[in-house]
Amino acid sequence: MSQSPRANAERLWQSLRSMSDIGATPAGGVTRLTLTKLDGEARDLFVGWAKEAGCTIRIDPFGNIFARREGRRPDLPPVVIGSHLDTQPAGGNYDGVYGVLAALEVVRALNDAQLDTERSIEVVSWTNEEGARFQPPMLGSGVFTGVFSLDFGLSLTDKEGIRLGDALSDIGYAGTDHIAATSIHAALEVHIEQGPVLEKEAIDIGVVTGAQGQRRYEIQLTGQSAHAGTTPLDYRADAALGLARSIEAVRRIGIAQGEAARATVGYVSLSPNSPNVVAGGAVFSVEFRHVENNTLDIMEEALLKEIQQIADDTKLEHSVERIIDYAPISFDSRMVDLVEQTAKQYQYSYKRMVSGAGHDACYLSRVTPTAMIFIPCVDGISHNEAEQIYPNWAEAGANVLLGAALAKANDVEK
Amino acid sequence: MSQSPRANAERLWQSLRSMSDIGATPAGGVTRLTLTKLDGEARDLFVGWAKEAGCTIRIDPFGNIFARREGRRPDLPPVVIGSHLDTQPAGGNYDGVYGVLAALEVVRALNDAQLDTERSIEVVSWTNEEGARFQPPMLGSGVFTGVFSLDFGLSLTDKEGIRLGDALSDIGYAGTDHIAATSIHAALEVHIEQGPVLEKEAIDIGVVTGAQGQRRYEIQLTGQSAHAGTTPLDYRADAALGLARSIEAVRRIGIAQGEAARATVGYVSLSPNSPNVVAGGAVFSVEFRHVENNTLDIMEEALLKEIQQIADDTKLEHSVERIIDYAPISFDSRMVDLVEQTAKQYQYSYKRMVSGAGHDACYLSRVTPTAMIFIPCVDGISHNEAEQIYPNWAEAGANVLLGAALAKANDVEK
Repeated sequence: MSQSPRANAERLWQSLRSMSDIGATPAGGVTRLTLTKLDGEARDLFVGWAKEAGCTIRIDPFGNIFARREGRRPDLPPVVIGSHLDTQPAGGNYDGVYGVLAALEVVRALNDAQLDTERSIEVVSWTNEEGARFQPPMLGSGVFTGVFSLDFGLSLTDKEGIRLGDALSDIGYAGTDHIAATSIHAALEVHIEQGPVLEKEAIDIGVVTGAQGQRRYEIQLTGQSAHAGTTPLDYRADAALGLARSIEAVRRIGIAQGEAARATVGYVSLSPNSPNVVAGGAVFSVEFRHVENNTLDIMEEALLKEIQQIADDTKLEHSVERIIDYAPISFDSRMVDLVEQTAKQYQYSYKRMVSGAGHDACYLSRVTPTAMIFIPCVDGISHNEAEQIYPNWAEAGANVLLGAALAKANDVEK
Repeated sequence: MSQSPRANAERLWQSLRSMSDIGATPAGGVTRLTLTKLDGEARDLFVGWAKEAGCTIRIDPFGNIFARREGRRPDLPPVVIGSHLDTQPAGGNYDGVYGVLAALEVVRALNDAQLDTERSIEVVSWTNEEGARFQPPMLGSGVFTGVFSLDFGLSLTDKEGIRLGDALSDIGYAGTDHIAATSIHAALEVHIEQGPVLEKEAIDIGVVTGAQGQRRYEIQLTGQSAHAGTTPLDYRADAALGLARSIEAVRRIGIAQGEAARATVGYVSLSPNSPNVVAGGAVFSVEFRHVENNTLDIMEEALLKEIQQIADDTKLEHSVERIIDYAPISFDSRMVDLVEQTAKQYQYSYKRMVSGAGHDACYLSRVTPTAMIFIPCVDGISHNEAEQIYPNWAEAGANVLLGAALAKANDVEK
């Protein structure tokens, strides 16, 4: 397929650079929280570029921006591609932004190639993906797909008590356009991996087959605080020891489920947490992620059993509470196949993988065939000013997005 | 020795109860920080009782109180017995207080038995043993024995900036008597064990052979903070895992040195300490205690080796800093033998043991033959409002103190 259109890598990189100026931090990152003045500026820049590229702009009541490149058959459900422009505080230059600007580059490249499509292509920027200013995350795509009601979303407040709906009006992005989530032909999102796998394995493209489910637990171990000098080891009911064994057990449970499993103890708290007192209590988090709910069940069962055994062995009381339970998501298999074939077509190395983080595409997958494309990021670092990618990585992701979007936009037979 | 005088258990218990009223907390404990108004009241009560028992009161410039029961030969160095009246915040009714009032009971019991002694007996209450309001602990005995200068001690300030010397004057206990640390014949202190051993083994008396040395370390492990969802287990440099293995290693190092060794991780801090972030850093304390300095050397060497290995295995950077190094103390062997013989004489079960905590007797042992007597406490709980002993336990300790003090007070041949 020597006729495959290609993204203009230099233009894409320049657009990323220009967008990075809005909210740039001295350390080279960006702070552009959702619905702030800076977010407004970023939206304006994107909208300006999209108009220059010939797109029609629509904005829905939650501030999601749709930039439409009209197809030959405007009556057919469009192909939606995009991501988000908001960032974490002291965040990076690519998380979300790359997905929006790569989608814009699809439009620009199709224009360059003077290629019309049967279906329209809509480049979308979702409101408040990060959830840093207003909780929960992935709110724009969540409201769009009916996971959350519009009223719920608009009524959320930030730490300073500012209503999301008011912040949206203040930057001029409280739209009135109705865009039906039920009439989308397909959705694609390209994103940095936010993990180390692609870079370490020197692979160009991650073919994302779904997103991990997640279960989080809060575990309490209760022993007896005791004098570190007077209490022999055998007489102790030491919550720190129970904690240590639990951390090892959590890792063991993760390893037992193979490369796709995640098992993390990221939060710990001892009491009284004093160097010369044997800890009488420990509270810690356990987080499991896997793409199969059945595997999460197995991990949970193993956790309960291991914690019971550890508590018995160390003379501790214990409690385990599950506080988060997100089901895994599997993307549409034909969409996943399409991404894989497109990577092959552009002669990129690729690997099927599961997203460990949540993305707008996860909610989109509830209403339309959806898939995601990952590109590497340096050292897997994200949500951090040190987030970094290279222009050729950005180009590869944009090309695969372009090829896959083009295929879906011309897919009118089914 | 059917003529052995005996403590009046009921009187001792009543005195303990009365003293507990001063600073009593609703939960049944006591808060009587050193040199507060409440400490002044406790001192006044003790001084009143001592005077009633015929003692002469002297107070040194650091507020240490000496209540002297004159012997037949006032020129001979006296026998010093006692402990401290100050408590921890929300502390117990017996830590320190029991040692002072058991010593007072020795005087009262000798009075009852109309027994004169060759040497004088001085009941002492040391200022600021706890170190809760003014750091460091064991300050009164430390100044008395020349470990700290008087000026250093008086110039210390509490959290509110109040000078120790001023607090001492305010409660009327800035004395002017000079009591020479160099002319004491022997010193004895009875104290609750503050550990679980005697109670669990149903032993009446702990014959304390010395006090453990203590070394404390601050250890830092540094890995890489990472997304808990996107970062496979194999790619992690997880400081929580290093922490877990270190806690197990510290316990292993302690167990390898037998029953007398203590090894504790009581303080831990992860960063960023967030449930969905792999920990990039861990800081934690390691505390070793043992009665042999050589053993502490072996434990330290093992610690350095284990931490190095753990850091290598888990891909972490590490640093180990020794922040406390107190040498072990061995009490005078003839004094220890005397305590043992006296316990036998009163037909109490006993066990030689090492103190895991610091006591005024540790500093006294620098200037005079010294020993300590332990009695059990419920569940080993101390520095806590739940601290508890029983009247018969209190009686046993007072009897052994009485017998040993009497022997030393009549020991004029050497």
